[in-house]
Amino acid sequence: MKLITAVFSGETVVGVVPEGEKAAVHLRRAERAMDGKETIPASMLEAIAQGEAFLSRAQEVADWALRHPKPDYVCRLDDVRLLAPIPRPAKNVFCIGKNYVDHALELGDAADVPKHLIVFSKTPTTVVGHEETILRHADVTDEVDYEGELALIIGKKGRAIHREEALDYVFGYTIINDVTARDLQERHQQYLLGKSLDTFCPMGPWIVPRKFVSNPNDLRIETRVNGEVRQQASTKQFIFPIESIIETISKGMTLEPGDIIATGTPAGVGKGMNPPRFLQTGDVVEVAIEGIGILRNKVGE
Amino acid sequence: MKLITAVFSGETVVGVVPEGEKAAVHLRRAERAMDGKETIPASMLEAIAQGEAFLSRAQEVADWALRHPKPDYVCRLDDVRLLAPIPRPAKNVFCIGKNYVDHALELGDAADVPKHLIVFSKTPTTVVGHEETILRHADVTDEVDYEGELALIIGKKGRAIHREEALDYVFGYTIINDVTARDLQERHQQYLLGKSLDTFCPMGPWIVPRKFVSNPNDLRIETRVNGEVRQQASTKQFIFPIESIIETISKGMTLEPGDIIATGTPAGVGKGMNPPRFLQTGDVVEVAIEGIGILRNKVGE
Repeated sequence: MKLITAVFSGETVVGVVPEGEKAAVHLRRAERAMDGKETIPASMLEAIAQGEAFLSRAQEVADWALRHPKPDYVCRLDDVRLLAPIPRPAKNVFCIGKNYVDHALELGDAADVPKHLIVFSKTPTTVVGHEETILRHADVTDEVDYEGELALIIGKKGRAIHREEALDYVFGYTIINDVTARDLQERHQQYLLGKSLDTFCPMGPWIVPRKFVSNPNDLRIETRVNGEVRQQASTKQFIFPIESIIETISKGMTLEPGDIIATGTPAGVGKGMNPPRFLQTGDVVEVAIEGIGILRNKVGE
Repeated sequence: MKLITAVFSGETVVGVVPEGEKAAVHLRRAERAMDGKETIPASMLEAIAQGEAFLSRAQEVADWALRHPKPDYVCRLDDVRLLAPIPRPAKNVFCIGKNYVDHALELGDAADVPKHLIVFSKTPTTVVGHEETILRHADVTDEVDYEGELALIIGKKGRAIHREEALDYVFGYTIINDVTARDLQERHQQYLLGKSLDTFCPMGPWIVPRKFVSNPNDLRIETRVNGEVRQQASTKQFIFPIESIIETISKGMTLEPGDIIATGTPAGVGKGMNPPRFLQTGDVVEVAIEGIGILRNKVGE
């Protein structure tokens, strides 16, 4: 089951994409048709806050809708416009820096392989969905770069979460392209500015709930630019696996439902090439993660 | 005029503290009593989004309320509980690093005086109000430090804002104590974690609208710990004045009403002393800024 935020005939709603990825189910309308109830919320943030209750209800409603399909609540996936699954996060997106050894090395040397977690953030204004445009920002930067990443969505409030229980706090997974202006990242020391230009956080195409991902620390991840493979790795190469990330971030900080954590990018970014190859207007970037999906965005003006 | 978010007999509302700082006006109730209208919103974020319309209406209502005081909408300031003026920001609080030469020098050397703006953030879960407790987090850090700062609140949406127009985008000013776990700040390289422990962003006691602050780049600022003066400076010592901060942050990133930017701290932090003097349980920290007010918080368990 994949959870989407999508525009169905002008209305932004939470939906489900069933196996096969050809259809989309408008959950609220399907629920009303199924039994007249109205438990499905209007937004993904509210859905996440409902947690397991939402997930089991969404599954029930989607299964029913596929057995009783009507155009009112089941349509072709191509006929909806996908937004980022969480179009407007309630705080900055947490991002992990240098969580793959080879990526730390391509941008520096052995001293750049972190001994402790590196955490920075992207502002909510950066978020765009699958197939939305990444702005080139030619007046601000000459060095726009991609970073394909697995991202997790927190499902439950917690502080001082132990690594043994950390995955219980995950609602699901999605894909993020942690687009970066390398010149700004370097010039301003702290990463926030270089990471937070408008449209620099493509996210999607959907959220895969935790129970459908058997081991998030062992997923193939690949980033392609105009079809050319640039990053190819597995999340088993994480320096800090997901449990460790959640434990460290939550040590003194409360994590909340809907929080998003991008887990870092593997080797193969444009800046690591010789000479560097940055994104240009017209480029198409795809980030594919095993069991999650493909996030595709074009660079434009 | 000072704008507060406060709990009046169990209800969280937007209010005004008139000159003299002895009284508090419950704006919605006063407005209803004045002319039966209901234009005053329930939260400060909504009020900021209304901009000038809110400010002139708040002034009109507060003036009327003081001429026709009734216990229903005018009470002693001591009888309300102040919250942070924006108790739950809609994104992380932007913070400027090393914006005073002497502070950069006390933590490093001449190479640490920034040539370009340094921007990092604190999560919304860090925010507490005047007189609320700063948690000591003894299980996570041994080095809790204060940083008194002038903060500005953005009032108008904008990108690529020129410095000549930057102050037009300011709704008002408040005080922030950018509390920092120095050991985490250093260990994790990027500042977010060391800056984002729960309660590490005392803010308040109120917002002073822009028109009441003649020159935000020339205000005396003082931080005291248990009455002892630790930081004493003027915002005229900013390396990057407010206009420059807004111009640089907004170059490729849209700023939105309610965004909060803490402008950096002057010399005199605990880590800069020899030997360092970090905050301990029971300490009282006050940040006083000319024309704004005094933000006071106690360190507790």
